[in-house]
Amino acid sequence: MSQLKDSMIKKIVFLGAGNVATNLALAFKDKSFDIVQIFSRTEKSASGLAKKTGSSFTIKASNIIKDADVYIIALSDNVLDSVLRDAGFSNQLLVHTSGSLSMDVLKKYSSKYGVFYPLQTFSKSQPVDLNNVPVCIEGSDKNVEAVLSGLAKCISGAVHTIDSETRSHIHLAAVFACNFSNHMYSVAEDILIKKNMSFDILKPLIEETARKITLQNPREAQTGPAVRDDKNIMEKHLKMLWGAPLYENIYRFVSESILKSRNQ
Amino acid sequence: MSQLKDSMIKKIVFLGAGNVATNLALAFKDKSFDIVQIFSRTEKSASGLAKKTGSSFTIKASNIIKDADVYIIALSDNVLDSVLRDAGFSNQLLVHTSGSLSMDVLKKYSSKYGVFYPLQTFSKSQPVDLNNVPVCIEGSDKNVEAVLSGLAKCISGAVHTIDSETRSHIHLAAVFACNFSNHMYSVAEDILIKKNMSFDILKPLIEETARKITLQNPREAQTGPAVRDDKNIMEKHLKMLWGAPLYENIYRFVSESILKSRNQ
Repeated sequence: MSQLKDSMIKKIVFLGAGNVATNLALAFKDKSFDIVQIFSRTEKSASGLAKKTGSSFTIKASNIIKDADVYIIALSDNVLDSVLRDAGFSNQLLVHTSGSLSMDVLKKYSSKYGVFYPLQTFSKSQPVDLNNVPVCIEGSDKNVEAVLSGLAKCISGAVHTIDSETRSHIHLAAVFACNFSNHMYSVAEDILIKKNMSFDILKPLIEETARKITLQNPREAQTGPAVRDDKNIMEKHLKMLWGAPLYENIYRFVSESILKSRNQ
Repeated sequence: MSQLKDSMIKKIVFLGAGNVATNLALAFKDKSFDIVQIFSRTEKSASGLAKKTGSSFTIKASNIIKDADVYIIALSDNVLDSVLRDAGFSNQLLVHTSGSLSMDVLKKYSSKYGVFYPLQTFSKSQPVDLNNVPVCIEGSDKNVEAVLSGLAKCISGAVHTIDSETRSHIHLAAVFACNFSNHMYSVAEDILIKKNMSFDILKPLIEETARKITLQNPREAQTGPAVRDDKNIMEKHLKMLWGAPLYENIYRFVSESILKSRNQ
């Protein structure tokens, strides 16, 4: 409870009930914060998360209660404006959780605003332990920044104060490191399915690939035909991609980029 | 020692002293096999591994001793032929460790041959525990296959008998899952370096991305702007890639491929 007092936040409202909202709401509930209300545009999502956090819920933005200590916004970037307009905030503390949006998108909706960006990939179904997850915060003034820092420290041991421009680059880096590496797993699975092989055979390799870069930087850790400039194997591989042009293009450009990195 | 008898193999010669040879040689030494000789074209590599395994070494292929029970070949694909020609084998048991080469490349050098392909990314400096590493074996006849299976089971709990054609597809899948995902980490590091940020901030995300696909398939695990078809963010990201055309192409084609996978 001392952490809770430090952060000067007790009552939290979540706008959004997707992967990010679910993981953050459960983490705060676990630290005895009061998740007073969930807003989501679909009743199923709103009620689903509200049930897990013992909260009320609404699907109407104008029904969002106004006396919470912080409003954590985890909505799709493209619906954020319409929801905030309908909600009618004035001086409530509003924070969004987006990696790519500038903090200032919230400026016209409140005098106190900020960012609370957890750098992690979330699923609703498998909540993540947030303790080691970096949280990037930013505040409209020093007071807001202090409040958000205190709040973030209640759930994470890795809190960073980061401006919007730097955060957008971290987000871009995360798209490569997480979203794009996951798609590489997905292409691999497709290749194995075509030969009736289980994806399971690759799991120890994927685990070790991710573990290696905790010990050496990714450029040093690079292995495979591209970094050896083994043209025979690369030509053979391109022919094996059953004329799937996107996979062929990915193979070509990633291989070329690996070789270029080696020679830099 | 019972495992050792089962495999009917005691004396092993390694041709090659790179990442794969080093990891396999150390694993077999650890199980009390006798690594009698290391061949490598460079004295530094040959003597370096020979020292670790208590073996003799040679840099001349014609000096490779002929009375070992198996010759494990972990050479670059492009030098394999010249080394084997110079070595002058006749009926020794020769196995290569390549994911992409057909077993039959060894046919002209011996009457007994096969494949011993460990599906893992290796470094000389950080030997890997091979116990969970899948080993794909193939033999020129059933006897060879039984011997190689027994040998593989001495160091790995995941031994698979796989024909050359299927193995080459597993290797292609591994290039995506390991080599290409590692390059995604490398691009991410480049992006962070430009903003004076440490790559460390991404490590929990990378670890979780790899962990997630042990629980759900990669297509279900996919997150990020591409799978949401969030064109605003993707356009913004392309502009942030400082005109690096390879990174832009990777971004474009991987995003397009993620979206296509979602809609399939």
